[in-house]
Order: sequence, then C-alpha cells, then structure tokens
Amino acid sequence: MKKIAVFTSGGDSPGMNACIRSVVRTGIYEGLEVYGINRGYEGMIEGDIKLMKSSSVSNIVQRGGTILKSARSMEFKTPEGRKKAYDNLVTLGIEGLVAIGGDGTFTGAKVFHEEFGIPTVGCPGTIDNDIYGTDYTIGFDTAVNTALDAIDKIRDTAAAHDRIFFVEVMGRDAGFIAIESGIGGGAEFVMVPETQTDLNAVVKSLREPKASSIIVVAEGDELGNAEVIMQLVKEKIKDDTKDFKVTTLGHIQRGGAPTARDRVLGARCGMGAVRGLLAGETGCMSGVINNELVYTPFSECIGQHKPLHPDHLSLLDILRI
Amino acid sequence: MKKIAVFTSGGDSPGMNACIRSVVRTGIYEGLEVYGINRGYEGMIEGDIKLMKSSSVSNIVQRGGTILKSARSMEFKTPEGRKKAYDNLVTLGIEGLVAIGGDGTFTGAKVFHEEFGIPTVGCPGTIDNDIYGTDYTIGFDTAVNTALDAIDKIRDTAAAHDRIFFVEVMGRDAGFIAIESGIGGGAEFVMVPETQTDLNAVVKSLREPKASSIIVVAEGDELGNAEVIMQLVKEKIKDDTKDFKVTTLGHIQRGGAPTARDRVLGARCGMGAVRGLLAGETGCMSGVINNELVYTPFSECIGQHKPLHPDHLSLLDILRI
Amino acid sequence: MKKIAVFTSGGDSPGMNACIRSVVRTGIYEGLEVYGINRGYEGMIEGDIKLMKSSSVSNIVQRGGTILKSARSMEFKTPEGRKKAYDNLVTLGIEGLVAIGGDGTFTGAKVFHEEFGIPTVGCPGTIDNDIYGTDYTIGFDTAVNTALDAIDKIRDTAAAHDRIFFVEVMGRDAGFIAIESGIGGGAEFVMVPETQTDLNAVVKSLREPKASSIIVVAEGDELGNAEVIMQLVKEKIKDDTKDFKVTTLGHIQRGGAPTARDRVLGARCGMGAVRGLLAGETGCMSGVINNELVYTPFSECIGQHKPLHPDHLSLLDILRI
Amino acid sequence: MKKIAVFTSGGDSPGMNACIRSVVRTGIYEGLEVYGINRGYEGMIEGDIKLMKSSSVSNIVQRGGTILKSARSMEFKTPEGRKKAYDNLVTLGIEGLVAIGGDGTFTGAKVFHEEFGIPTVGCPGTIDNDIYGTDYTIGFDTAVNTALDAIDKIRDTAAAHDRIFFVEVMGRDAGFIAIESGIGGGAEFVMVPETQTDLNAVVKSLREPKASSIIVVAEGDELGNAEVIMQLVKEKIKDDTKDFKVTTLGHIQRGGAPTARDRVLGARCGMGAVRGLLAGETGCMSGVINNELVYTPFSECIGQHKPLHPDHLSLLDILRI
Repeated sequence: MKKIAVFTSGGDSPGMNACIRSVVRTGIYEGLEVYGINRGYEGMIEGDIKLMKSSSVSNIVQRGGTILKSARSMEFKTPEGRKKAYDNLVTLGIEGLVAIGGDGTFTGAKVFHEEFGIPTVGCPGTIDNDIYGTDYTIGFDTAVNTALDAIDKIRDTAAAHDRIFFVEVMGRDAGFIAIESGIGGGAEFVMVPETQTDLNAVVKSLREPKASSIIVVAEGDELGNAEVIMQLVKEKIKDDTKDFKVTTLGHIQRGGAPTARDRVLGARCGMGAVRGLLAGETGCMSGVINNELVYTPFSECIGQHKPLHPDHLSLLDILRI
Repeated sequence: MKKIAVFTSGGDSPGMNACIRSVVRTGIYEGLEVYGINRGYEGMIEGDIKLMKSSSVSNIVQRGGTILKSARSMEFKTPEGRKKAYDNLVTLGIEGLVAIGGDGTFTGAKVFHEEFGIPTVGCPGTIDNDIYGTDYTIGFDTAVNTALDAIDKIRDTAAAHDRIFFVEVMGRDAGFIAIESGIGGGAEFVMVPETQTDLNAVVKSLREPKASSIIVVAEGDELGNAEVIMQLVKEKIKDDTKDFKVTTLGHIQRGGAPTARDRVLGARCGMGAVRGLLAGETGCMSGVINNELVYTPFSECIGQHKPLHPDHLSLLDILRI
Repeated sequence: MKKIAVFTSGGDSPGMNACIRSVVRTGIYEGLEVYGINRGYEGMIEGDIKLMKSSSVSNIVQRGGTILKSARSMEFKTPEGRKKAYDNLVTLGIEGLVAIGGDGTFTGAKVFHEEFGIPTVGCPGTIDNDIYGTDYTIGFDTAVNTALDAIDKIRDTAAAHDRIFFVEVMGRDAGFIAIESGIGGGAEFVMVPETQTDLNAVVKSLREPKASSIIVVAEGDELGNAEVIMQLVKEKIKDDTKDFKVTTLGHIQRGGAPTARDRVLGARCGMGAVRGLLAGETGCMSGVINNELVYTPFSECIGQHKPLHPDHLSLLDILRI
Repeated sequence: MKKIAVFTSGGDSPGMNACIRSVVRTGIYEGLEVYGINRGYEGMIEGDIKLMKSSSVSNIVQRGGTILKSARSMEFKTPEGRKKAYDNLVTLGIEGLVAIGGDGTFTGAKVFHEEFGIPTVGCPGTIDNDIYGTDYTIGFDTAVNTALDAIDKIRDTAAAHDRIFFVEVMGRDAGFIAIESGIGGGAEFVMVPETQTDLNAVVKSLREPKASSIIVVAEGDELGNAEVIMQLVKEKIKDDTKDFKVTTLGHIQRGGAPTARDRVLGARCGMGAVRGLLAGETGCMSGVINNELVYTPFSECIGQHKPLHPDHLSLLDILRI
C-alpha cells in the first residue's frame, strides 16, 4: 500500500481535525502518500481530492469543524455514483481509505467496501456517542462539556428567579450527552430515549417548594422535545406561580475547540486506522475500548446499540435528593 | 444616613453580584449599615431583608446571577403594596436605597421615590444595554461575549457543511447585543430593531456561491424572530441546495461568570450609588459615561432611547465584502 | 452503620466538590447521617466536624476547590494526633470514613485504618493521575484541559513570532498531564519523568527552520524544570536567531470549574465509596477501571506505579513529523 | 491613493487579526488594493509583501496572534534598512501604510514617515493599554479577561488551602491589566508601577486571620516582580503558618480568541485608519476616545503617559474591606 485517502462525512464533530492530522502524519510516518477528499462521498464522486503534506494539517488540532468539510451525498446512494467515486480513487492510485464519521458514514463505507473491495477503516466521529465498538466517539466529550457549560450558565439565572428550565441537548436516538451533562450539571431530572420517563415523578418533585430546577431532555426522548415535555408538565402541575422556560442548545454543541480527550482520542483512532490498513484490517472501525485500540466490523458498529451505564442511571436517582 | 438597603430586580445579569459587593463594602467603608433585600420589590413587601457584612459578599464577584435573587412583583404595582414595602423599610430604619436593575426596576423606583421620598439611586443591571444614562449596562459585555462564543462554535459547523445559520440573540427592543456579537463574529448580516432590514439585499447576497453564512437576528427585530426571518428568506431565495438552520441562544446569555468589564463596571456603579446617596443624589441612576461616573434622573434613563453607533452600522456594511 | 464522615486532604483538585456532593447524597439516600470534616486530618484532630444535609451540597458541583477545605497536618503523623482524631469520631458516633485525596491522604488513611479499624474507603482526588487503582483521578481531566487551553493561547503568540516555548505543567512524578496536553496541543516534544529525554533529538529538531515550536515539560522530568531544560537546549543549539521563552503554568491547573468527566467521575467514586462502606469494603479506594467501579487496597494504590500508555508515546513520535 | 499596505509589529495581541481584516475589507470597500506585509518592518525590508483579497481575511476574526506575523527588526533602525524598505514599497506602488502595534511600532513609523513622507496611520495593538490617544488598546480586554480567568482558578485553590497568592500579570510599565484584573478578581492588593506600594499595609492586612488572599503584581512594579515582593512580605510578616505561593501568568496573556470588545475595537480602528489615509490623515494613530474615532499624532501617542483612573484606585481600597 502506497497511497491512502481520508475523508469526513455526516455531521461534523470537534476532534475530527485532530483525527485527520493523525491520519495524515501517521501515513507519512509509515511512508505512505495521504490524500484528502473534500466534502465526503460527494467529493469522492466529484474527484475533489488533493495530496496532503505534514504542513497541510499544521495548526488545526485546536479547531472545531473539519478542514475537509462534510456533505450529504444522494448520488453515493446509487451504484452509478459509487462507481464514479471508485474510478476516481483508482485513477489516483489510492489503495486504502480512512472514513471519519458516524452511522451513515459507516453504512456507506460498508456498501462501498463490499462492492469494490477497497481496504477501508473507519474512525468514530460524532458527538452522539451512539457507535458500537468504541467507549467514546470523537466529539462527544466536547459536546458534553459545551452542554454542561450552558447548563451552568442557565443555573445562574434559574437560581436568581426560582425558575424551572427544560434544557434540550443533542444526541439523536441516544441519551449519552443528556445523562453526562445532566449528572455533571446537577439536573433534577434527565429524560433519555433509553428509559421510560415517569412524568408523574417529575411533576411530584416539581410541586415541592424548591428554589429552581433544571431538567435535561435528550432530543430523542420518547415523549417529545423539550417544548412538548414542558407543556405536558405544565398542564399536569397546574401551578401558575411556577415559572417554566425552555432552552434548546442546538448547533453550538457541534462546534468549538475540542477538549483534550477528543483530541487525544482523535489522534489515537487516526493512528489506529492507518496502522490497521497496513496490517490488513478492513471493513471495520478503529475505536478505543477499555483504553486499547480495537477494530470492530462495520456491521457490528452500525447494528448494535450501546447502552447507558447503570451507574449513571443510579446517580440520577441519588443526586436529586 | 446610617442605614441603606440594596436589591436586584427584573431579569438578572452577570455582574450584579460584583455590584452588590461594591454597594455593601462601600457602605461599610463609609460607616453605614447595609441591608440586603431578597427578591426585589417582592421581598421588600414581605420584609425579606437582612443585614449584610463584608463577608456576606466574599467569593461572589465571579458568579453569575444575583445572590439577592430577583422576582417580578404584581403587588408593588399597587399603592397598598408599596405602602407595605415602605413600612418595612421604616421599621428597620433604612434611609436610602440602591436599586440594581433595568427599565422596570427604575420605573418602580421612580414611583416609589416620588411617593415616599426615600433617597434612591439605581445601578444599570441588564444584559440588553438599553438604558440611557450609561455607555454600557452591567451584564451587557458578558452577554455579548457569550453570544460571540456561541457564534464562533456555530461558524465551525456552518463552515464544515456550507450552511446558512440564523442565530437569534437577546436584547429586547435594542440591537446592541446583536450588532456587537455580529461584528465580532464576522456575521454576513445583522438584523436589529433600530434599522429597516432590507430582505432583498440579504437574499441577493445569499444567492452568491459562498461557503457559509451567519446572520445574527436581534430578538426584537421588526420582521420577527430568527425562525420567521429564515422562512421569509427561504421562500424568497427559492434554492433547495441551500441549507438553512436556526439557533436561538436563549437564556445562556443571562448567566456565566461575568467578564472583567462587567465586574469593574458593577463595582464602579455600586460605589457611585453609595457615594451618591451620601452626597444627596436621589431619584437617579449611577452610570458611567465617557469613563466618568455620572448621575442621570430616572425619568431620562427610562424615557430616552440610546442609539446604535453609526460606526457599528458602517462596519457591518464594510466587513461583509 | 448509621453515621459516616467525609473529608478532603492534600492538594485540592477540581471535581472534589462533585465527589463530596455524591458522598453526602448517596449517604442520605441510603439512610445514613453524613458529617463533613473541615481541613482534612487537621480538622479531624480539632473536631471541626459538622452534620451535612442535602442542601449543604447544593450548587457546588460546578465549583473548583473543596468546600471542606484541605490542609497539611503534622500532628496526624504522630500517634497522639491520630488518637485525638479517633476520639473525636467516636464521640460523634461516626462509624465510617470517606477520604478524598491522593497519595498522602491514603497513606494517612491506611495507618489510621490499621490502628483503629474504622471502616474507610478512599476516592482518588488529585490532578496528577498518579494513583494506581483507577484509570483516571478526579481533577486530572480538568487540569489537562486547563493546560491545553494555555498551550493553545501560547501557540497563538509563538506562531506570530516564530518562537520556541517551553511550557511547564504539573504532575509531580508522573507525566500524564504533560503527555495528554502535549498530544492535544500539538507539541513538538513532551518531556516526562517516565522516559529518558533525548536532548540531542530535541536540539536537532529545533535546528531545522520551523515556524514555531512548543515543548511541554512535566514538572518532574529527570532533567529538571522548564527553565533548566531551556537553558540546556539553548547552550547546545548555539543559534542566536532562535527566540526561547519559558512559561510555568502553575496553580491555575488546580482550579476552575471541573469538566464533565471530572464531575461524573467524582459523583461515581463518591457513590462507590458509600456503597462500599455499606457492603463491608474497607482500607481501599473506590476507583473506576474500564468503566466499572472497583475497590483497590490502599497498599496497592500507594505502592504501584501507573505507566503511561505506549500509544501515547507513539503518538508523540508520529505527530511531530 | 490606489494601493496601501498593512503590517503588525512588536508583541502580538488578540484582536490584531480583526484589525487586519477590517483594514483589508475597508480598503477594498473604498476601491483600494491592500497589501499585507509579513513580519513587520523585517518583511518590509525583505519585500515579503503580498496582495490581499477579501477571502485572505476570512475566518480569522476569532483567532489570536497575527496572520501577518510579527518580528523585531534591527535593520530598520538603520537608515539603510529603512531605505530598502521604502524602495520595496515604491516598487509595488504602495502609497499608504497602516501600522498595527504599540510604542515601538509607532516610534519606527514616525521616523519612517518623517524621512520618506509616506502617508501612515497606526492602530493601537498591544495588550498593555499603555498608548496615549485611545481609551483602550486592541488586545487589552482579552488579556485582562485571561488574567481574570486565571485569578478565578487560583482563588479556588487558594481558598481550599487558606493560602496567600502573589499573581504576576503583564503590562510593561503600566498597571492597567493589574488593576482591572485585580478589581475584577477580588484581589486584596494590587501593586502597580503608577503608585508607591505600601508594603507595611500589605503585611498588616495579611497578618489578620483571613481565609486566603490574592495579591496581583504588575510586572513593572517599582518593588520588583512577584517573587521578589513575596520574599519581602514573607520576611516582614515572620509567620511560618502562612503559606505563600507565586504564579507568573506569562505569555498566556498574549494569546487566545479575542473578546468581543477587542474584535469590535480592532475593526473600528482598522476602518478609521483606512478612512484616515483617504482623508489625508498621516503620522498619527486611529484610536477610540469616548466612543468616537480620533486621530492622535504619533509624537503624542508615544510621548504621553496615560494615567490609571482614580475610581479604580479608590475601588481597591474600598473592596478590600
């Protein structure tokens, strides 16, 4: 293997740049040429691919977003699109791929790998932490800390006015961001898709005379979003003196300088991906489980659901006291 | 004058604690006893008032919110409520008041002062910067920096996906937060209540092939909120390849550790308020204009509108290029 | 067991308050009375102990430092001192202890436990991460991110002037803070006590015409502190056009709002400590290994050395390219 | 005037990039070609000059440092060096200069302007705020907030251990950073070059039994640096139970994402500089006094000393209570 290419796809996450940097420099360190594909599968189809040098990834480790950009590609879902993409890789002599992204990215990579057999290793880049095969995904830690910082700010004003705040955080179908920012932020309740929300318990607790309360709602909760849940609670609680507010944190959770954890994880997964390609790993993701680099087949990464830790659920019950 | 009292009222703002600390310690420094009234006018009516010592305000200068809490008081709008409040002050021997807050706070203080003649000086505590009689209000600088930090994060993800973001910031009827965070954040457009938004110019600019764009919308803009404006733009632009997103920053703008500017301003206005009371100032606000402490009658503070600076409006036009 | 007590000892670390909060609330949740001992062993000797309620630990989860304070105690090193401490616990009917701290704290706890047999479980609170029996210590993640934030700032000015910066970080005899902040911060070299620093390699690399360089030095490095090492390098490199600077980050690494990771870890270890006491664990530390709560005897926690991960050492070599 | 050039010189400061961006875009807006000179006067001599487009300054507003880099130039202090520099400008047809920097930068610009008559306007870029002709310099607000953030962190650990911290901040011969971060950070004492430090008052205050204390020392204080002053105090106080620590914040104060204030100020001064050149202003600096753009001759900017505000000095005495 002489030439490999790296790309980012799907929603961007902080730490992707640290991962790209690591892929490029590990590749060069191992004697490879490393190409960067812009805008994910879309750029692969359009041939928007360029050779990267060590200096191409200087001074990016601290930046959010992805210097390779990301995009959704409808065309890549068609066999013709994928053929075009493959031809571009062949033309450039690219013999291996590193795909940084989440669920959708790996689904695409799996199909592409099965069709054309090009060696491919993924890196888990998503803030949602919903990828099986790694304890944490690149970007999750930053997103949790961004959410936590927002909750800290909201607590200041909630306490000043004895208000009840419903704070909606991201996470797609998973409650990881919600549960960690909720425990960290001293939230009274955290509503996550993984558990059945007991609205009566929430209402009962909020009826008690308490200074202020913060309730963290995962965007994927089975009861609906923060606005919907706030309305449900408000109707049940029937107390006009209670002051309810909703804040939806939104896309600030995707940006910002990555935390140390995300930069180191990005660097490590990137190194693992290149080493994996050289060692014959393919159709799999380079993740970190129990502090060791491991390769997990794409099919498992996509197909399996990573559960919340029971300790975290216990902590929610205990710390509310 | 031997005894004064301080309270915060209306929406809380970062730096109120620095201001309270300064009122308490300047009072003690000048030989006064200083009382803290909890929850604004509501606590004044309920007699929720306690003597404060120097140590009561230790280790609070860095905290958002207000240790004296804030509340809206319907009862204070009635003559009976205000009489009750006044009686509580008389009982404790309180001879002067420092009112920290915004528009509504000073409206109340003005009426109360006119009815009972108790010497009263205000301090401008609001994130909106919409108070005449001071160049900046306490909390404004922190709110702008919080908004700016959020815009920086959003720019990361906007750039990664070539998206157009409409970011809604606070400010009530004023565009100060919007314009300063917009210039600072490199926004393409800033929509503020003070100027007529030219939607066609926005649409024209967004039609050009550009990587990504951030449009900052003041919550009080005459065209509506960010969601409404985004829909208007979307309908006019008629381009399905453009990806629009809305983020409403919400209450995170009210909290957080205050910036240096807000802490120093809070300290200074607080010192000015106590000195003013001792020097016979009353029915006025202690603000800072052109780096000097000045007292402005409540009637002017409430009644006059502080304009945006033409330089700021020019910068928006220029920097978009 | 009806009554337990919690204290912090040794250098403070961010997340200790989250841990205290968890000990108090888990205790109450389990039907115990929980006492707080001020200033560690010193307060235990002086009887500076008070009952804590759930509200005693409200609104502290986001604060650095420790609300129970910390102190060094010479008297606790004497049998008489420890006897006095034990008598105070007996008087109050305290039947179990949770000791939050590092090496020195556990050494004291081990002796005390051996002498008087009072059930004791520790929680790993130190920024240095040098405690065996847990993957991470409470406070480490915050310290790394503080160091990283400082390195990011220094990189700005280093790049503007093409300077070479030696940045000294904490960590006592361990290089954990140095290696993670160095990888995360894109440092050219990281000097840690665990490896022999090859000064010639550093000099050779710095001789190459490069924009700017950051070298992270662990305070415990075998060659000396950052100032000493900078002088060594300067003498060897013999190039007057190179501009060397030293920054010693110092105690800012001990403070600040804890990261999500440290808050959650603190909460979890605290819960584990109380549960451990109730389950008969004693003379051991409640840590988290491979994402599970485990108890490790104090003798192992103190006696064994936790190594740096080989992946991290590899990354340093690779990413410098 | 058809072509102008912009450069940064001397110590870098956060907000310089916002200023460069504004110079470039205001120039383009006004129909000019704008060149960027790398590494200040050094690059002017070497002819390291390139045409800048609007996109050259995209996505830099949030970055610390300066994209044009900075350097000290010995050669520019010679008539030959300056002649070479001037010839390079003539060759490119550059008819006007914008010089961003501090004292040293303007001294050079003044001489150059006097010798060759090329129209030149400066922008005040330095963290020290020691430039006459502007209320604030670009970078000052960020540096103060960085120092304040560090003081907040140090207070956490100081309070946990009842320690006395001497924190040294930057500012060259001026006490602006010290006094604003000291008031904002709740410091017990602030030692600045502008006032005679009363060591006995400090010693007397520190002798009182107090939890913890923070003393901010400006690097230019007449008694010496923080380490020296700490030793002086320690010798006088003669109390072994007091625990003294020194932290020198160093170069972290020069970096980091600029605050809103510094970005807006940078943008405004940059716009003022270009407009000034077009209006015939020369040999002067574009600053902001009392919220209005004003031009002050270089000779005044360099020659006059800007005093600390008496209110700030009063606040220090009062708030220590």
